Amino acid sequence: MQKVSIVGASGYVGGELLRLLLFHPKVKINQVISREHIGKPIGLIHPNLKGKTKMVFSSLSELETCDLLFVALPNGKSMKLMDKFIHVGRKVIDCGADFRLKDGKLWQQWYKTPHTKTNLLNKFVYGLPEINRNKIKKATLIAGPGCEAIVSILCLWPLIKQSVIKPAAIIIDAKMGSSQAGSKSNQSSHHPERSGCIRSYLPTGHRHTAEIEQLLNLYGNRPKVLLSATAVEMVRGVLVTIHVFLKELLSEKTIWKIYREAFNQEPFIRIIKQSQGLYRFPEPKILQGTNYCDIGFEKDFHSNRLVVIGAIDNLVKGTAGNAIQCMNLMSGYPETLGLEFPGLHPI
Amino acid sequence: MQKVSIVGASGYVGGELLRLLLFHPKVKINQVISREHIGKPIGLIHPNLKGKTKMVFSSLSELETCDLLFVALPNGKSMKLMDKFIHVGRKVIDCGADFRLKDGKLWQQWYKTPHTKTNLLNKFVYGLPEINRNKIKKATLIAGPGCEAIVSILCLWPLIKQSVIKPAAIIIDAKMGSSQAGSKSNQSSHHPERSGCIRSYLPTGHRHTAEIEQLLNLYGNRPKVLLSATAVEMVRGVLVTIHVFLKELLSEKTIWKIYREAFNQEPFIRIIKQSQGLYRFPEPKILQGTNYCDIGFEKDFHSNRLVVIGAIDNLVKGTAGNAIQCMNLMSGYPETLGLEFPGLHPI
Amino acid sequence: MQKVSIVGASGYVGGELLRLLLFHPKVKINQVISREHIGKPIGLIHPNLKGKTKMVFSSLSELETCDLLFVALPNGKSMKLMDKFIHVGRKVIDCGADFRLKDGKLWQQWYKTPHTKTNLLNKFVYGLPEINRNKIKKATLIAGPGCEAIVSILCLWPLIKQSVIKPAAIIIDAKMGSSQAGSKSNQSSHHPERSGCIRSYLPTGHRHTAEIEQLLNLYGNRPKVLLSATAVEMVRGVLVTIHVFLKELLSEKTIWKIYREAFNQEPFIRIIKQSQGLYRFPEPKILQGTNYCDIGFEKDFHSNRLVVIGAIDNLVKGTAGNAIQCMNLMSGYPETLGLEFPGLHPI
Amino acid sequence: MQKVSIVGASGYVGGELLRLLLFHPKVKINQVISREHIGKPIGLIHPNLKGKTKMVFSSLSELETCDLLFVALPNGKSMKLMDKFIHVGRKVIDCGADFRLKDGKLWQQWYKTPHTKTNLLNKFVYGLPEINRNKIKKATLIAGPGCEAIVSILCLWPLIKQSVIKPAAIIIDAKMGSSQAGSKSNQSSHHPERSGCIRSYLPTGHRHTAEIEQLLNLYGNRPKVLLSATAVEMVRGVLVTIHVFLKELLSEKTIWKIYREAFNQEPFIRIIKQSQGLYRFPEPKILQGTNYCDIGFEKDFHSNRLVVIGAIDNLVKGTAGNAIQCMNLMSGYPETLGLEFPGLHPI
Repeated sequence: MQKVSIVGASGYVGGELLRLLLFHPKVKINQVISREHIGKPIGLIHPNLKGKTKMVFSSLSELETCDLLFVALPNGKSMKLMDKFIHVGRKVIDCGADFRLKDGKLWQQWYKTPHTKTNLLNKFVYGLPEINRNKIKKATLIAGPGCEAIVSILCLWPLIKQSVIKPAAIIIDAKMGSSQAGSKSNQSSHHPERSGCIRSYLPTGHRHTAEIEQLLNLYGNRPKVLLSATAVEMVRGVLVTIHVFLKELLSEKTIWKIYREAFNQEPFIRIIKQSQGLYRFPEPKILQGTNYCDIGFEKDFHSNRLVVIGAIDNLVKGTAGNAIQCMNLMSGYPETLGLEFPGLHPI
Repeated sequence: MQKVSIVGASGYVGGELLRLLLFHPKVKINQVISREHIGKPIGLIHPNLKGKTKMVFSSLSELETCDLLFVALPNGKSMKLMDKFIHVGRKVIDCGADFRLKDGKLWQQWYKTPHTKTNLLNKFVYGLPEINRNKIKKATLIAGPGCEAIVSILCLWPLIKQSVIKPAAIIIDAKMGSSQAGSKSNQSSHHPERSGCIRSYLPTGHRHTAEIEQLLNLYGNRPKVLLSATAVEMVRGVLVTIHVFLKELLSEKTIWKIYREAFNQEPFIRIIKQSQGLYRFPEPKILQGTNYCDIGFEKDFHSNRLVVIGAIDNLVKGTAGNAIQCMNLMSGYPETLGLEFPGLHPI
Repeated sequence: MQKVSIVGASGYVGGELLRLLLFHPKVKINQVISREHIGKPIGLIHPNLKGKTKMVFSSLSELETCDLLFVALPNGKSMKLMDKFIHVGRKVIDCGADFRLKDGKLWQQWYKTPHTKTNLLNKFVYGLPEINRNKIKKATLIAGPGCEAIVSILCLWPLIKQSVIKPAAIIIDAKMGSSQAGSKSNQSSHHPERSGCIRSYLPTGHRHTAEIEQLLNLYGNRPKVLLSATAVEMVRGVLVTIHVFLKELLSEKTIWKIYREAFNQEPFIRIIKQSQGLYRFPEPKILQGTNYCDIGFEKDFHSNRLVVIGAIDNLVKGTAGNAIQCMNLMSGYPETLGLEFPGLHPI
Repeated sequence: MQKVSIVGASGYVGGELLRLLLFHPKVKINQVISREHIGKPIGLIHPNLKGKTKMVFSSLSELETCDLLFVALPNGKSMKLMDKFIHVGRKVIDCGADFRLKDGKLWQQWYKTPHTKTNLLNKFVYGLPEINRNKIKKATLIAGPGCEAIVSILCLWPLIKQSVIKPAAIIIDAKMGSSQAGSKSNQSSHHPERSGCIRSYLPTGHRHTAEIEQLLNLYGNRPKVLLSATAVEMVRGVLVTIHVFLKELLSEKTIWKIYREAFNQEPFIRIIKQSQGLYRFPEPKILQGTNYCDIGFEKDFHSNRLVVIGAIDNLVKGTAGNAIQCMNLMSGYPETLGLEFPGLHPI
């Protein structure tokens, strides 16, 4: 049993951490910190948790020592406070973007503002269990990946590692739910404008490009990732459609084998590729609330192109659930503890 | 640990029973019966369960003895097979409408077809734990209530029992999600027609009227229930807005007290009535996957009217979850076992 | 051809006025006023109008004399500026709530703030053409009704006028789209919170109650209107389900006759009551962009209750279209001019 | 004034032709043919047209001579009846796929069934006004393009014609609304399954690939089109995100110029590329009911990739509206006649 606290607990990632940790058999939540809602009961902000806990939000200045601190703050905020967090938490899992890249200059290039804690960058382990499991087990500082990065990397990593695709043009078309932009309203999240939209909001220049390339670069030769993001009508979920070009003609069977070998033992990865039924490929809607990353693919009969399809819930496998998966590894718990929810259908 | 089977396991209620029972610590699923999908793996029909079980669907003729049999068949089908079911299952929970009414003639009046098993009607206990808990504990045959009936009865029962409302005009405006019509497609469920609709599909004549009146009649004097049902854009969920007239002026405080006394100890009923926040009254969207029935109310300053608002997930507290709650009672398990999922937010 | 201007032209009602007036064959739009977007092209704020006009928004201080001024301002704003508007516009159609009630005290009771222009209240004609056509033709000042009021009054007026329903309990359950709350974002319109919700946001106390009662009172004896409003997942549209009690048993045929006599000549009212097809009763989704008010009904076999169902697009027949219908009457144009769009299906 | 008839008038394309033609000032609709709904009033099937026409559906055997015949039949049906259609209609516009490709073998390769009217293939003009305007003006037989093809070709044609992109890898990620699959329900269109889905239904092998390549091939050198289609939560609309690789570095200004020169005079093409506002790029939701094709683009700072974004309403510019645009050209009418609807916002 360990004592954990959450900073940024009133946002959507914070709420999802709370939902999962309240039912985690090895965790005692010590404090939930929110600048804005100090003293308010949790159920007022996270209505699904009404009746599940009597805790109220505390202020940052009250933050006490704990075994593990989850940080869910906006980009740029986390680096300002990280010294304090490291002092307070024996271990820290940062769910934001501040410590994902190893190179401060690269960070500045994509985030358009200088990185002020470059000395810490190499102390953080990139928290993707399927790839960095052993490092995570020994880590005390974790940088949780971005949600598009998680699903894209998991789709691409086996292909890059086996060196079967051309690295020069990896095209990722990401379809994003609205929760991904956070819990604060603004004009672009106004329901009459956002409802039913298929909005190309980042045709180019998506920041997660950098961390996908950084990770894949360890396994392949200078991959060039071209990511477009479109907001679609859903609240939770990411679907990526990835177009890659095969170096040489491979059968679907071979590609199956590559994925199976890579992920056979993974508790949270399912290869979804069915010839019948409605759910032949991954779909985010049935993953809501789950820690799964579903992956499927189809070989184009018309070209050497391979289309890989990946889906996650951006708030679970895309952030909070993945962070708890890291916590389980760091703590020697079963990796799936507290993350067993199978998802709903229909939904 | 008991051995349970499900007949009608490929429908939406069947799928939800499976989702819940697969994780129930005191249950071993013995057989899942579906006429249509014999031999197919469960994950093909219920994609959320892919990877969670290796069971396949069996045919009805293969049905074996079990401790408890869940029946999820269309109206009229269940009564034809009930003799067999009672023979096979030591206990039977029927999720359909066939054994909800005590009076075969009343059944015929609302369902427009004769009831052919009237001899069994009095052997079934109406499976609403919050009201019939003690009877359910001792029962071997349970008739699970209709989903609109469950939420409407729970909203009305404390008021009727305390005799504070006029029974002659209880107006229920029910907003229904699309899963309520079952898993078979038809022209009215065709997405371009059903999407975004606010469709008054049963302005009068809703069959659940009969069971609501039957139950309330035990506690009040000839209540007259006027139910209108509107299909709205959601998959799971029921919201009822109930307009009742108070016999005499009561303060909101008194009404609070009535509900609190009725439901204070209930694990699955929450009174939702907040003066701040976005979720001031019950909302079905955050109840998806949960066994909660949330109830709220507001007194009209302009008249002696009281508006009561109730919300459930039609597939959980409205059917499958409620049935498992009955099973827990019948088996001496903690009533909430396997039903702890708190729901998601945002969603 | 007349010269019209619009104050409050950047909001949703303003945008809808622009969409309709840009194509109106007898109108020249002179100025579009918006405090917030002065100098910006219209297509930036109303993206559907991009390429349709080169006009830009002007400031209120630039407002010039015109034949007819449309005012689409928030409640309370309009009364502050009405003297100026009357000075500038030969005729004025106010789309807001400020001049709908005849009694300043009643206004204060429902709107919780004093009315500061009570001297003007009796100079405004309540702009509901189907009921006040002759008064509107001669009017120079029009108060456009609220959207729930329009559809509710049109559903109820024939029944009240024929004195067939009990006035003491008229229960209106209104389902509202999100555009009804205006174009400004706030936390409750934030997509992850508002999407898919069925939110009982005004169980009692809805302000439109007052104007419905005021109007019906002219035709019946002290009608008591009990209005509940629920926000549902749509952008445009209102559906009202109205429960009334018949004084004596009437056949559906008689009710048909009452509606037919009342509305037979009305170009924008359709009685929708079909025994087959998917669209047996009114539905707001196919009314988007149209000026129709569709009305249907069903008699309860189980009681003396009648359920009346009405649907409109809140931004067209509910506001902007209805205002232009008034303009057509005031100007001696064909009543339907510029309002012919039939709506889309599927949608 | 010409006499037109519609075969296949009860489907979604048929209904949209009706909506537009009923208001077209130069058209008299002679007959509406539907095998399934003979004798039924149009408003029963197309509820938006209730009250707009008294016509009923006729049977195919009753089809009379007319000036122009619109054919909206499923793939493969049209070729069987085309001899009859050519005999009956002085001119024929076929909205289906049967006569889009010039090469019968290519047809068979993509449609998996032999083409039985290859002798007619070269007599049909590919009905894309922006590219084939002069041929259409003189044509008597028109093959209306597929909806994904229309928007993709219009996005790509200027770039291919100017030879600025590499033809070997044109990646089109198409997001499709549910109306695109037609008016007949099936399990995959069942609302609980289709609602909220982001479903990769044709990762590869989309048939429209063939007609896009056929057309572009006339202007460039063997373009290879790689099309993936994803079903998203909308009823009407297509959004394509197209990733292409520039042969050499071009500024956004140059690309602007290429599009402007290509489409400057086009009444139905708008270049949407704004630096502010919510609608910076094309979005299908505000195009519902309109004949616009909106096109935008963004140059990737990180690579030589260009992302082009196109949006249409699949039932208007994607089929029925485009067909009427062709009719206008073939008849010497103003090209925009009857197609002026600007679309709704918010929606």
